[in-house]
Amino acid sequence: MSEALNVAVAGLGTVGGGTVRILHENADLLARRCGRAIHLCAVADPRRHDRLNDCLDGVEWLDDALALVEDPNVDVIVETIGGSDGIAKKLCEAALKKGKSIVTANKALIAHHGMALTKIAEQSGATLAFEAAVAGGIPIIKSVREGLAANTISKVYGILNGTCNYILTEMRETGRDFEVVLKEAQEKGYAEADPTFDVDGIDTAHKLAILSSLSFGCEIDFDSVHIEGIRSVSATDIQYADELGYRIKLLGIATISEKGLVQRVHPCMVPLSAPIAPIEGVFNAVVAEGDFVDTVMQVGRGAGERPTASAVVADIGDIAAGRRTQTLSVPLKDLKKAPPVPMTEHVGEYYVRLTVVDKPGAFADIAAILRDHDVSMEAVLQRARDPGEAVPVVLTTHEAKEADMAEAVKQIHSLDAVAESPCIIRIESF
Amino acid sequence: MSEALNVAVAGLGTVGGGTVRILHENADLLARRCGRAIHLCAVADPRRHDRLNDCLDGVEWLDDALALVEDPNVDVIVETIGGSDGIAKKLCEAALKKGKSIVTANKALIAHHGMALTKIAEQSGATLAFEAAVAGGIPIIKSVREGLAANTISKVYGILNGTCNYILTEMRETGRDFEVVLKEAQEKGYAEADPTFDVDGIDTAHKLAILSSLSFGCEIDFDSVHIEGIRSVSATDIQYADELGYRIKLLGIATISEKGLVQRVHPCMVPLSAPIAPIEGVFNAVVAEGDFVDTVMQVGRGAGERPTASAVVADIGDIAAGRRTQTLSVPLKDLKKAPPVPMTEHVGEYYVRLTVVDKPGAFADIAAILRDHDVSMEAVLQRARDPGEAVPVVLTTHEAKEADMAEAVKQIHSLDAVAESPCIIRIESF
Repeated sequence: MSEALNVAVAGLGTVGGGTVRILHENADLLARRCGRAIHLCAVADPRRHDRLNDCLDGVEWLDDALALVEDPNVDVIVETIGGSDGIAKKLCEAALKKGKSIVTANKALIAHHGMALTKIAEQSGATLAFEAAVAGGIPIIKSVREGLAANTISKVYGILNGTCNYILTEMRETGRDFEVVLKEAQEKGYAEADPTFDVDGIDTAHKLAILSSLSFGCEIDFDSVHIEGIRSVSATDIQYADELGYRIKLLGIATISEKGLVQRVHPCMVPLSAPIAPIEGVFNAVVAEGDFVDTVMQVGRGAGERPTASAVVADIGDIAAGRRTQTLSVPLKDLKKAPPVPMTEHVGEYYVRLTVVDKPGAFADIAAILRDHDVSMEAVLQRARDPGEAVPVVLTTHEAKEADMAEAVKQIHSLDAVAESPCIIRIESF
Repeated sequence: MSEALNVAVAGLGTVGGGTVRILHENADLLARRCGRAIHLCAVADPRRHDRLNDCLDGVEWLDDALALVEDPNVDVIVETIGGSDGIAKKLCEAALKKGKSIVTANKALIAHHGMALTKIAEQSGATLAFEAAVAGGIPIIKSVREGLAANTISKVYGILNGTCNYILTEMRETGRDFEVVLKEAQEKGYAEADPTFDVDGIDTAHKLAILSSLSFGCEIDFDSVHIEGIRSVSATDIQYADELGYRIKLLGIATISEKGLVQRVHPCMVPLSAPIAPIEGVFNAVVAEGDFVDTVMQVGRGAGERPTASAVVADIGDIAAGRRTQTLSVPLKDLKKAPPVPMTEHVGEYYVRLTVVDKPGAFADIAAILRDHDVSMEAVLQRARDPGEAVPVVLTTHEAKEADMAEAVKQIHSLDAVAESPCIIRIESF
């Protein structure tokens, strides 16, 4: 058996702590699987705590993560500090420059600086690994880069944020509104005190930008991701979705074609028959479509100490076993620069919920506006109502252009008979 | 870029043909991803055909696969001949002995001779790869050996045979009987002319034996797999399953504990809420449970030219890129010899369908027999009937021991009031 691989963990929060725990609990197993021992030689975190004392016997504890870069004993640094800039970025840059490999769970960092970090890694020959950055415990990065390597992948999509999926599931099951469920999720620890990254779709967008780069062999382009979160999804819409045979999911969807690169994150109506429709609660699901393999879906826990650490340690295992894959699936120089397709060019089906005061001709006006914008209705749902009362009118459309749809809805909103802002959710039929 | 990897394909049937096609169509992509070209230098098949002519320009065609072993240009041989013995086995043995790597889709070969072939590969340093042998296009072997390497895996199960899943789905959707649907599946090419390996569960057992060895780090033990197929599943049982909130699936299930190794293949009643319940038609699904990652499920096409070839070429890609994993996840010498747990020791819930002639006291007798064997009923379903008429009585049980259940059913069958053989299906609540 070869010499041990020396690993240091920078950042002993949730994921860093889980990593330390696996390296301790499954040490023998890992050594047998990797052909050599994985030795935790140091940890770095300025906030000392004793939660991991049982796993840290003989392990050096530093306050300053950057000091790990200078330690000649350290082969691999696990970056579980977080944040797209600051110390995490500095640490990764310095370590890779020195030829030390980096394993990170930091999606924000990779989404924003993955290209620059890959360049440093390519130059020094160090490994930059980030399985834990996308979909937690699901080994989706390995699957896309290696398991599906024989395929031209043209579409990748999924439920990439467990917090949002949990909130949407709770809203559906209990009929409660977003704000109420979010508060409860925060109390239970399923949502952060500042939930912005999760509920506004940014976290999903980080992961999608990474996934689409790896899947399509194009540059990471976070800035062009169209991002909408779930704050605007109401209990009413969830109820209508149920009635119409849909589930509402926050999806990240990426496709590539001659037109360019589509990357969009927004709430979707997904038919109950879709493979991802039954994925509920904190679970994540990722679907990749390849020209030979057809469709492959992976489902698992997308967050949490133990599943995310499982992915971190898988990356360490690859380094220990000497398995290397190109960071962004192909060399940096071969990455395509795919032009982003603007969201206005999107073509799809739509769910529209209007609040209409029942006046003679109101519906005729709405129908005329839709017709004038080439939007053809598929179904209309309207409850019995009293004349003059505002009632919800729900309609679904056949395929229409996003720009037409937006303009039509704007004109519909300006009608006297239409109260409140119309609510639009895109329908995705997989 | 390094020198090209020279590949030969032995057996130009479905999977071999698909492999040739990918190597041709996605050659540039593969070269970028692997860091070197993959060059198809020869094919071997005694049955000449021209279906692949567009992909075989300049490729040598041999009749005798064994001749590839002697060709000094060949680095990797793809074995897509099939069969657990005969030429396929000879070819793999000879190639591995020579230090040539083998990529195979042959589950029967690996289930029966995987240990012996691994020994030869370990000695010569050649790679023996078989991603395509389990669940077609789903990269489950890579996921279990590498992606989940940080985990002690204690359970792995799934829908591993697309033919059976297609038949069961068709039976449910159309209400037709097994024989009728099988015949149609054969006409459509979803089932072989001799369907034994598929419908009798042997193919699932081959795959399960491989999966459980890789997941648990124990020797491949095909002979101890408990195998039942789907011939005995009737349209009536599928209808009752529906009514009770279950789907009937042919599952392969493996668990390991202090008691030993459980490997069983049989039809199961799976609650509709289970993640694998909605997996229908020719799709496969594999679920692995690890101590850190919790549950990961992968879904995809388990057979067919293109998906299976996708897995074959993924293995070739690993060899081209220099990525190596231990054949059976840990060195042969470290594999555990886990004693098989006999099926009689199984504890679980059961679905029992009896055909009972309504006589006074008939049900009292049945209930008494179950009570005397420590089997406690959970639910009973009985339609209205005319006295003296034979009617189905369906009951589900709480957890009971397989041996007790078998004895109880034997005694129930011997009752005068019970016509026909009772039908028993195990319930699995995931």
